Amino acid sequence: MSDMKVVADPGTHDIRITRSFDAPRELVYRAYTDPDAVRQWWGLRESETIVDRLEARPGGSWRFVERDKEGNEDGFHGVFHDAVAPERIVSTFEFEGMPGHVLLETITFEEQDGRTLMTDLSVFQSIADRDGMLQSGMESGAAESLDRLDEFLAKGAGPGR
Amino acid sequence: MSDMKVVADPGTHDIRITRSFDAPRELVYRAYTDPDAVRQWWGLRESETIVDRLEARPGGSWRFVERDKEGNEDGFHGVFHDAVAPERIVSTFEFEGMPGHVLLETITFEEQDGRTLMTDLSVFQSIADRDGMLQSGMESGAAESLDRLDEFLAKGAGPGR
Repeated sequence: MSDMKVVADPGTHDIRITRSFDAPRELVYRAYTDPDAVRQWWGLRESETIVDRLEARPGGSWRFVERDKEGNEDGFHGVFHDAVAPERIVSTFEFEGMPGHVLLETITFEEQDGRTLMTDLSVFQSIADRDGMLQSGMESGAAESLDRLDEFLAKGAGPGR
Repeated sequence: MSDMKVVADPGTHDIRITRSFDAPRELVYRAYTDPDAVRQWWGLRESETIVDRLEARPGGSWRFVERDKEGNEDGFHGVFHDAVAPERIVSTFEFEGMPGHVLLETITFEEQDGRTLMTDLSVFQSIADRDGMLQSGMESGAAESLDRLDEFLAKGAGPGR
């Protein structure tokens, strides 16, 4: 069962998503920073994610391409301000379909009784950009992607790994 | 005469500073991205600015140290998401005295009749962080630093350069 929550107060610049996972935070952090892991859960089920670059260190850059069944590709990229295993990732995010619109994403991992609470805070350059992201169906996309992460962790995080 | 304006609406995550300069935007952009230029105007008059790193390209990093007359040092650092000469700089900013608090800064340069309008938009991870920056005396510090930039440009941007 997903406990995902999305908070986006009217008239502000941020979106905060929280969700817990049944895995230690080392494994959740690794799922966000290992190219082979990201490929398996990031994005929509019907799409394929190509990890072009994923250099989780200050000044490192990342670029993912999501390719849908028709072969249409959407690119996303940014740079890492911080990557502190297994606690925190601070990076920028730009959807290449809307060039010049950038957000700052802070993802933190807190362990509570063997589970990991993930908090993903995005702050946008404008309230309009934030509202546009909400209207784009971002919430259902994030829910699907985080469900896939949950399944990925359930498969890989067990003692048989 | 400075036409600096600072806009920070209550209950939001951003601060927007605008100011125009009597110089073409190529020179203003260079003043922000050339280590030897930054050293001469960034920060308070009574302090010395040491440019430890300034790599104005995507994934490049920057670090400045401000040393006051007593020798106390404050460090600041971040990474560049974009550096598009002479139009736009998008980078992160962290004051090392408050580690873990990061903002996204977008600086744009628009030319109008030979003058350059600079817009500096900062978005913070929280409204509390934004309010803390305002309360720290950031506005008078920015005004002094931008006055110094104006003087630097007046000195260097003329035909005798």
